[in-house]
Amino acid sequence: MLIVFLNLFAMDESRSKSLKGVILDMCGVLYDSGEDGGVAISGSVNAVKRLKESDLMVRFCTNETQAHREKFVAKLQRMGFDISVSEVFSPAPAAVAVLKEQGLRPHLLVHEGVVPEFDSLDKTNPNCVVIGDAAEKFSYQNLNGAFRVLIGLEKPLLFSLGRGRYYKETDGLKLDVGVYMKALEYACDVEAEVIGKPAPMFFQSVLNNMGIQPQEALMIGDDLVNDVGGAQHCGMKGILVRTGKYRPIDERHPTVMADGYADNLAAVVDMILTQRGH
Amino acid sequence: MLIVFLNLFAMDESRSKSLKGVILDMCGVLYDSGEDGGVAISGSVNAVKRLKESDLMVRFCTNETQAHREKFVAKLQRMGFDISVSEVFSPAPAAVAVLKEQGLRPHLLVHEGVVPEFDSLDKTNPNCVVIGDAAEKFSYQNLNGAFRVLIGLEKPLLFSLGRGRYYKETDGLKLDVGVYMKALEYACDVEAEVIGKPAPMFFQSVLNNMGIQPQEALMIGDDLVNDVGGAQHCGMKGILVRTGKYRPIDERHPTVMADGYADNLAAVVDMILTQRGH
Repeated sequence: MLIVFLNLFAMDESRSKSLKGVILDMCGVLYDSGEDGGVAISGSVNAVKRLKESDLMVRFCTNETQAHREKFVAKLQRMGFDISVSEVFSPAPAAVAVLKEQGLRPHLLVHEGVVPEFDSLDKTNPNCVVIGDAAEKFSYQNLNGAFRVLIGLEKPLLFSLGRGRYYKETDGLKLDVGVYMKALEYACDVEAEVIGKPAPMFFQSVLNNMGIQPQEALMIGDDLVNDVGGAQHCGMKGILVRTGKYRPIDERHPTVMADGYADNLAAVVDMILTQRGH
Repeated sequence: MLIVFLNLFAMDESRSKSLKGVILDMCGVLYDSGEDGGVAISGSVNAVKRLKESDLMVRFCTNETQAHREKFVAKLQRMGFDISVSEVFSPAPAAVAVLKEQGLRPHLLVHEGVVPEFDSLDKTNPNCVVIGDAAEKFSYQNLNGAFRVLIGLEKPLLFSLGRGRYYKETDGLKLDVGVYMKALEYACDVEAEVIGKPAPMFFQSVLNNMGIQPQEALMIGDDLVNDVGGAQHCGMKGILVRTGKYRPIDERHPTVMADGYADNLAAVVDMILTQRGH
């Protein structure tokens, strides 16, 4: 197993001691998703268990928008993960808060599993569009429907639950919400407001929940730009794992360089806990 | 009927005399498309007839990629237009020429009506993707299929038959190929090669066919950026008609200003022929 840690906690004992919280991406780090609900990535169940038994705080931060949080967390519990709903941060509840604050009525283009999260909002005569990872619901007809709402508004207002390009399911790579966000941005000549990773506000809400500073936190993800780059943009360190959607070319990205690379979550946790004398 | 001609032929008699050829966009200028095949725009059948009876050359230039050219032209003939296949320039035949020249084997994401145009190409083990206005065929599954071909190539190669944002059918606005081009560009971090308007090579092929210079030609379209801006970029004048996908905001575009605006094709042809003493 090859692990390369670049100027990370491992290289810097004082930093290792200052680490107080770890934020874990979920899909591609904990598990690989798929038609059958997905499977845990080897070693990840035990890695989460070891982290939670340590003195570190642990939170989960996902752009998953296909399922209601309760259902989604229950799925991970069935895979064996020690995880609860209150530890999970996902874009839909954050979006609901933003829409309520601004008095907006959304037209939803989201996976049916996440629709109930928006139950408390008025959706008649919509004055904005919210898109999430709608997957098979991204039909021509549905995308055209969202487009017509936007183009009919004096000032088109588009919220996107994440900006990922694609993710990996057990049967291969799948297009993510960011691709359809770009499609609607181009169609209407607007820029979407992203709710979810890599939006700084989203990472900050997780730090606030732990009550720690960015330099006391470490993000671990399989998405170089949205997990690692997003976390670094907020002042955290970011580790890229070589699972999930990882591709070797990610280690030669022109603008984003992770603070460390590891074969999987188990390897990162090994390294962190060893450094801390566990 | 309000017509505003800005520094165009109408304002400049010597330029009017130098005009030798007129290039007409089709959808939104000649007709409005729709499920039923579409309907001629009032006055356009007669306007084409009058242009062809004059001393001007007339060509038709479309990004239409839903139908084989023969079928498409037959549809317009049934609407009453004096038009023949040899006068029509569309992206699919241009793409076939490019692919043959470069020895490429395409994965097609195009409307089934245009598939026969690609019959002469080997499509096994594809090494590029060609997208056209696939409309209902732009399902999540099909876009994901094209994405997987691209992301599997060492250097993803994407050809797009046009870059339009949307067009108008009888039942409303519809997303065009450019929206899905942007989606795949973002997914794979590549830039598509556009074949069709507003690519200069495409306009130039029409000028070559007439044997005239850009300053001797006038483009008439309903798409400010792709018809008017594209033609201007080649040195032609461009008129925007207030039919088809036209929206009033087009007359306040930040970067593209038409050389003239007219309520419809009939009004433009009236003005041109009057100026020329017809």
